[in-house]
Amino acid sequence: MAPPPWYPSPALSGAGYSAAELAESCDRVFLLDQRDLPAREVYATLRSVEEVAEAIRAMVVRGAPAIGIAAAYGMVLAARALRPAEASRYVAGLRAAASMLVAARPTAVNLSWAVSRMLASAEAHAHEPAEERVADLAALARRIHVEDLEACRRMGRVGAARIPHGATILTHCNAGALATGGYGTALGVVRAAAEAGKQVRVLADETRPYLQGARLTAWELSQDGIPVEVITDSMAGHFLRRREVTAIVVGADRIARNGDIANKIGTYGLACLAKHHGVPFYVAAPWSTVDLATLDGDHIPLEERSRDEVVRVGGSVLVPEGVPARHPAFDVTPAELITAIFTERGEYAAGEIARAGEAGA
Amino acid sequence: MAPPPWYPSPALSGAGYSAAELAESCDRVFLLDQRDLPAREVYATLRSVEEVAEAIRAMVVRGAPAIGIAAAYGMVLAARALRPAEASRYVAGLRAAASMLVAARPTAVNLSWAVSRMLASAEAHAHEPAEERVADLAALARRIHVEDLEACRRMGRVGAARIPHGATILTHCNAGALATGGYGTALGVVRAAAEAGKQVRVLADETRPYLQGARLTAWELSQDGIPVEVITDSMAGHFLRRREVTAIVVGADRIARNGDIANKIGTYGLACLAKHHGVPFYVAAPWSTVDLATLDGDHIPLEERSRDEVVRVGGSVLVPEGVPARHPAFDVTPAELITAIFTERGEYAAGEIARAGEAGA
Repeated sequence: MAPPPWYPSPALSGAGYSAAELAESCDRVFLLDQRDLPAREVYATLRSVEEVAEAIRAMVVRGAPAIGIAAAYGMVLAARALRPAEASRYVAGLRAAASMLVAARPTAVNLSWAVSRMLASAEAHAHEPAEERVADLAALARRIHVEDLEACRRMGRVGAARIPHGATILTHCNAGALATGGYGTALGVVRAAAEAGKQVRVLADETRPYLQGARLTAWELSQDGIPVEVITDSMAGHFLRRREVTAIVVGADRIARNGDIANKIGTYGLACLAKHHGVPFYVAAPWSTVDLATLDGDHIPLEERSRDEVVRVGGSVLVPEGVPARHPAFDVTPAELITAIFTERGEYAAGEIARAGEAGA
Repeated sequence: MAPPPWYPSPALSGAGYSAAELAESCDRVFLLDQRDLPAREVYATLRSVEEVAEAIRAMVVRGAPAIGIAAAYGMVLAARALRPAEASRYVAGLRAAASMLVAARPTAVNLSWAVSRMLASAEAHAHEPAEERVADLAALARRIHVEDLEACRRMGRVGAARIPHGATILTHCNAGALATGGYGTALGVVRAAAEAGKQVRVLADETRPYLQGARLTAWELSQDGIPVEVITDSMAGHFLRRREVTAIVVGADRIARNGDIANKIGTYGLACLAKHHGVPFYVAAPWSTVDLATLDGDHIPLEERSRDEVVRVGGSVLVPEGVPARHPAFDVTPAELITAIFTERGEYAAGEIARAGEAGA
């Protein structure tokens, strides 16, 4: 395996891999191409904000916090390309870059959260000398990355308090280091429980169609030596009925004002099954996922992706030619099915999110 | 496409394809290799009962009624191979063949039902001349096939009475012509509704890991011109929440005395989701699927298949090397989650099955 492209510097998280990193020279963004995992550990090198937006759209990088971080780094590339521009053209250019990034994927609010934060800073510093403008934005992007990492570690400890010794955690999709600045949200809870000395094992839903569970969650956890078994999404009910699941823990792409969440397609079905079986259903997400401006889950824009991602796996076509397939990439889980939300600020009932947000928690 | 190997004779169902047929000369069994659908429509030609048992184990043919029919035809091959044998060796040979066939797959009771019926007849006619013994068994095997086809048509009409005009039926796995003597159980209900002039469309769960929904249900229904869309198994909850599903209809591999059923892994989760959303959950199965000797679902043997079938799709390996995967091939749905069971004898509440069976319905 080739060393990562930022070598010998460490990744910001200190880990041997990272979903997104900015070159020290601020002229390149490195994204671990998650489409190729686990077969190949290859970093894409992106030199423009257009390339970063396309990589987000194409799911080279995915996971709500990680695409926020990648987009923040993309804004640095945009700022660098605008070095010669005077302030007003600089601001206009960055606004265009921001719009392009936010349009790449609609559901995860972390994307627009990170880009807005970058744009506000760029506007405030537009009159600085060019190199300073770039350096300031790069520092902010790296801060967003590190803050996310620290938020994951804190929410991990918050959530781990709910995980008993000997627990089997069922999770969906990948809400791990690969989906965040490092450490992970749902998998951060698992990691924190393991670090606290608890025996913990994971049942990973493979998470069709994109197989983030089979490919990414299994890859991450096996690297950490945390026991993980892959199941098809359709097996969750069976293992719940057999009392083999202690708790379900998932991430989120957006948390609405009323505590409804959007997350990877299949999350809602799991929440229903958790309720049917009296098993707790936890959501772990940084506060950047909370969107108080969105009233409830029905107002969250849910991305529809292409038929092709459902009907093809590698070189295999699974569905007869001409037969349509649906591909909602996310679903909504209503607040009443959520036992608790773990954030870096603590644990909340889903219905408390708005109050906590307005209090600044 | 090459014509089917029994051409120019029609398949017993009259359709252009068939899961299992016996050559007129009783020396070959033809199985449509369902592992290759929809890419290729290829018939395997089997010349011994050992080959038939292996084909059932390897899922060349699958679906509870269809493997019963294939096994009945396999018994004919065994009888033919035993032509020179005197009566006691003939019976011993067929008993061994029966054991081998029944051991091929444990969950579907239709397999042992069909094989027992064949064996009882073979024992009763063991003293006949060799050619008559074979011809008698072949006639019985074909009768089992035709009776299944007729049962499917009758249960289709029974079930169709519950399907309103304009319905969207969610189904799991393939409980169609390919899983039966023809026409299908769950898909027989859909076909009968369409034949009765009702507008009906199908959401087909792709049904990981073996993808019977994406590959087989979609293939069958699109040939019939019945609108079908493929979804991943994880999407069912989302479409139920959106009120896009009128009813769920599935087949069964075994119906226990108390009305619990075993069916393809994922069925149980769907039944929980149906209950949560107040949508009817119907099971369609011929009476040969009813096993009054098995007390309840917890006493049904559930097959575990290999990790390989979960972690590979075509040439793609989905899971990192060394990470385990689980593969229960079936799950149990308790009677209380079943709205009604459709059989060729009529519609029953799951809890009525034992009484109806003992009354001979």
